[in-house]
Amino acid sequence: MKIVIVGAVAGGASAAARARRLSEDAEIVLFERGHDPSFANCGLPYYIGGEIAERQKLLVAPKELLQQRFRLDVRTRTEVVSIDRENKTVTARDLETGVTSTESYDKLILSPGAKPFVPPVPGADLPGVYTLRDLQDADRLLDVVTKGAKHAVIVGGGFIGLEMAENLINRSIATTLLELGDQIMPPLDKEMTQPILKKLKEKGVKIRLCDTKEAIEKTDDGLKVTLTSGEHEIADFVLLSVGVRPENTLAIEAGLEVGPRGGIKVNKQMQTSDPDIYAVGDAVETYEFITNNPTQVPLAGPANRQGRLAAEHIFGRSGEYRGTQGTAIVGLFGMSAAMTGLSEKAARRFEVAYEKVYIHPAHHAGYFPGAQGMTLKLLFSPEDGKILGAQGVGGGGVDKRIDVIAMAIQAGMTVYDLEEAELSYAPQFGSAKDPVNMLGFVASGVLRNDQPIVHADQLDKEPWTDALLVDVRTPAEFESGHIEGAINIPVDDLRNRIDEIPVDRTVIAYCKVGMRGYLATRILLQNNRKAYNLSGGYTTWELMQ
Amino acid sequence: MKIVIVGAVAGGASAAARARRLSEDAEIVLFERGHDPSFANCGLPYYIGGEIAERQKLLVAPKELLQQRFRLDVRTRTEVVSIDRENKTVTARDLETGVTSTESYDKLILSPGAKPFVPPVPGADLPGVYTLRDLQDADRLLDVVTKGAKHAVIVGGGFIGLEMAENLINRSIATTLLELGDQIMPPLDKEMTQPILKKLKEKGVKIRLCDTKEAIEKTDDGLKVTLTSGEHEIADFVLLSVGVRPENTLAIEAGLEVGPRGGIKVNKQMQTSDPDIYAVGDAVETYEFITNNPTQVPLAGPANRQGRLAAEHIFGRSGEYRGTQGTAIVGLFGMSAAMTGLSEKAARRFEVAYEKVYIHPAHHAGYFPGAQGMTLKLLFSPEDGKILGAQGVGGGGVDKRIDVIAMAIQAGMTVYDLEEAELSYAPQFGSAKDPVNMLGFVASGVLRNDQPIVHADQLDKEPWTDALLVDVRTPAEFESGHIEGAINIPVDDLRNRIDEIPVDRTVIAYCKVGMRGYLATRILLQNNRKAYNLSGGYTTWELMQ
Repeated sequence: MKIVIVGAVAGGASAAARARRLSEDAEIVLFERGHDPSFANCGLPYYIGGEIAERQKLLVAPKELLQQRFRLDVRTRTEVVSIDRENKTVTARDLETGVTSTESYDKLILSPGAKPFVPPVPGADLPGVYTLRDLQDADRLLDVVTKGAKHAVIVGGGFIGLEMAENLINRSIATTLLELGDQIMPPLDKEMTQPILKKLKEKGVKIRLCDTKEAIEKTDDGLKVTLTSGEHEIADFVLLSVGVRPENTLAIEAGLEVGPRGGIKVNKQMQTSDPDIYAVGDAVETYEFITNNPTQVPLAGPANRQGRLAAEHIFGRSGEYRGTQGTAIVGLFGMSAAMTGLSEKAARRFEVAYEKVYIHPAHHAGYFPGAQGMTLKLLFSPEDGKILGAQGVGGGGVDKRIDVIAMAIQAGMTVYDLEEAELSYAPQFGSAKDPVNMLGFVASGVLRNDQPIVHADQLDKEPWTDALLVDVRTPAEFESGHIEGAINIPVDDLRNRIDEIPVDRTVIAYCKVGMRGYLATRILLQNNRKAYNLSGGYTTWELMQ
Repeated sequence: MKIVIVGAVAGGASAAARARRLSEDAEIVLFERGHDPSFANCGLPYYIGGEIAERQKLLVAPKELLQQRFRLDVRTRTEVVSIDRENKTVTARDLETGVTSTESYDKLILSPGAKPFVPPVPGADLPGVYTLRDLQDADRLLDVVTKGAKHAVIVGGGFIGLEMAENLINRSIATTLLELGDQIMPPLDKEMTQPILKKLKEKGVKIRLCDTKEAIEKTDDGLKVTLTSGEHEIADFVLLSVGVRPENTLAIEAGLEVGPRGGIKVNKQMQTSDPDIYAVGDAVETYEFITNNPTQVPLAGPANRQGRLAAEHIFGRSGEYRGTQGTAIVGLFGMSAAMTGLSEKAARRFEVAYEKVYIHPAHHAGYFPGAQGMTLKLLFSPEDGKILGAQGVGGGGVDKRIDVIAMAIQAGMTVYDLEEAELSYAPQFGSAKDPVNMLGFVASGVLRNDQPIVHADQLDKEPWTDALLVDVRTPAEFESGHIEGAINIPVDDLRNRIDEIPVDRTVIAYCKVGMRGYLATRILLQNNRKAYNLSGGYTTWELMQ
């Protein structure tokens, strides 16, 4: 068995190592266009920012190790330029010498990755305009940021753009971030991104939403970035991080099927339209876990699993890719934002029926010092309570809750299962009723109709515009800010003042986070009022303003 | 509907709040023998140690709040002394005045908790000998530790004993911990407790295992604790924390069934042998999740869920207690130890067939600064890979992995599902192959026979005593410590030196953590050697010495 692998990062490296474990006899050739196989892609921003001081650390599996330990024929700086499917060979070009050679294969695995998209604007090719994909890009940027650069413009508010913003701020570089959309972190829903946006601004990142570059020119002051808004920014350098595109040229030229967004089409065994050719990682179009719709999600975890699966299938194993949940996280200035499964906008796009709830718990017991707040959002099926997706933003412990829910999604669990989750509790780590349980309680309460809810983004829509808003917080909380038109009846007074609530009008109770609002809703419902709780309370309402 | 609840902490308070949410009309009487309803039990050691500075913070739901917000009839310092099941009344005594009164009920919920066990040794009743159950106990201990106490003896190496040891050390009190058993943290398996034991010793806790008090006497120097070993310890005060016993007197006197270990017997709706009487929390005998065997686990999370379920069943809902997984965690000096599901000793006790694996991953990407090590142990069914239990010990991120696996256990998932888990990865939070995935890879490899394993505690038993141990680490690692009798062939040399490995002898490969040992095992197996990998490598072996 001779296996040829194109691309030696993440998926390709995983496939190679797995293939070797499964077969000592296989001949395994690993082509890598770049200088380094299996480098730590996700560490690049922190290397540029100086948090990762040793370049060496980013070389997760150096060439020598792959050669010696896994007996792989590793050929870096060598690009596979064509595939001859009929004769089952690839042609590769040594990028140092220009010499081409032909290599036969029994099975071919494509793991070419995705390349940063360079938008077609004037000046995108100027010196001082960068993208970030590999260690050499990172070396160049490290050079720039440590040699006097004072101003930077980052184009694109995705995870990498934001991580770069943090790292440039840590280098004391004045940083402006441009984002064409009306929110940062596009995979998340907008309201969930607000706490991060606020933190970035606090830390000095200048953020322009709904604005992007129209042109880049060289001036005496540096690069002048002219914006859609007509304004401009001056910078010593520009980083383009507006997303990636699958490296699909090789596949297309070989006649392999690709999807509408360019991802190489594969089945659940990671085989392309040619069963002897597999494709894995950022270049493939795979399946969204919940809906089974086609999706392209460039993430390291799925890439590794896909590489492993391809190798296993080659050796006759029966594994199957289960689809991509899109579990992802970003850490910024001590905060984090994470998600798994469907976002609300994805649910809409896929026309999946959903209900949602918000909570704002502390990451561990409130009575123990250092509890940090977080906001969690859960999407679930209104029919059977099946969990569709979750997002979290806050300080510590967001990763844990999203990971627990990621597991629940994989298992096809429901919000009722979250109620019963038995998670570890000591005051430093959680609460006797963990945020995951709380999500279950609230969502189940909605489905059982214990707690009809309304969302902050519905208040200005029918049939809610005539509803009476009752702020059930304390007068002091009410005075410090409330929703326009609300009356204030603290929950503890509600029973005594129930006569102030009309019986013929829809009533929306709200508090700070939704807990007192829930109790108020229960009191109102049992007193024959048409009552709803504002999910996530005033805190969620504020995130939606 | 009139509901009487005995005990207002955790389960009782949860039941009361849930009952009120379900019914505004219900009359709900909450008896509490102590001074405070719903206090933060798990915070007491940190209050004594000074980490929680404000006593007020421990009063999670003060009496006034329960009265006002939930309209509960809360009667603290009032002990229910008898139940008249025929007439459905309880007799309660006001502990301040001694006056007794009778209260009728439609439904009665017992949540009396568990009391610290006071071993029958001479001197256990001396002044200066304490137990820790409620805020008043904590107040007394706070007084002692802030007024000149210099030496303490803690009896019992369970979670509370250890948390108290940390907090006394933080108060600069010389602390000796006595534990009758041969390990601390009895719910965990011994080898998993070793890193914590080491840390405690480093921090100055004097620990005596397999030794306990035989007698306590008052001397001029303080309390003299004479030990089983014949030695003695002198201390200013002694804390007894050798476990708890269910508060079952009331239930027994009312003729309710209790289990062999004293827990009040309940069905899955938390009803006792009298269907109008429910029991919840630390006083009940419930079901172990995996085996359905009876168990008594005093934990806050299960208590709260049980209280909630009891209230729901009273109001005609159909919930069912799923059993207790025993998910628990303790944080000590920045480390943590956690578990969920069956321990190895529990699996043996319940005669559940199991296989186990160990791994020693970092809590996040190794290339990012601050990665801390952890040890994870996974128990699973050798037949179908169903996850039976997990334990973890280390620095950061142990809680997350145990919680993820706790969710997997609830879902009845297998080790193959852990392989596919899609968890959040950024370098600060995890790895592209998360420790949870790694557990899945290793365990699946064992079940698929890719990786036959042997355990460190089997090496001195048949049929392993004649096996050839091959240390596949580097010569430098080998020199710094290895298993007696092992030969050293680094994994990278193994293919070239394969002739040094006999074909007719069982070979056990090992490395530091099991990764290189796995590859070595693959190489050996494919070269027709009878090869096994030592699970968890030298690191696990060391934990078992």
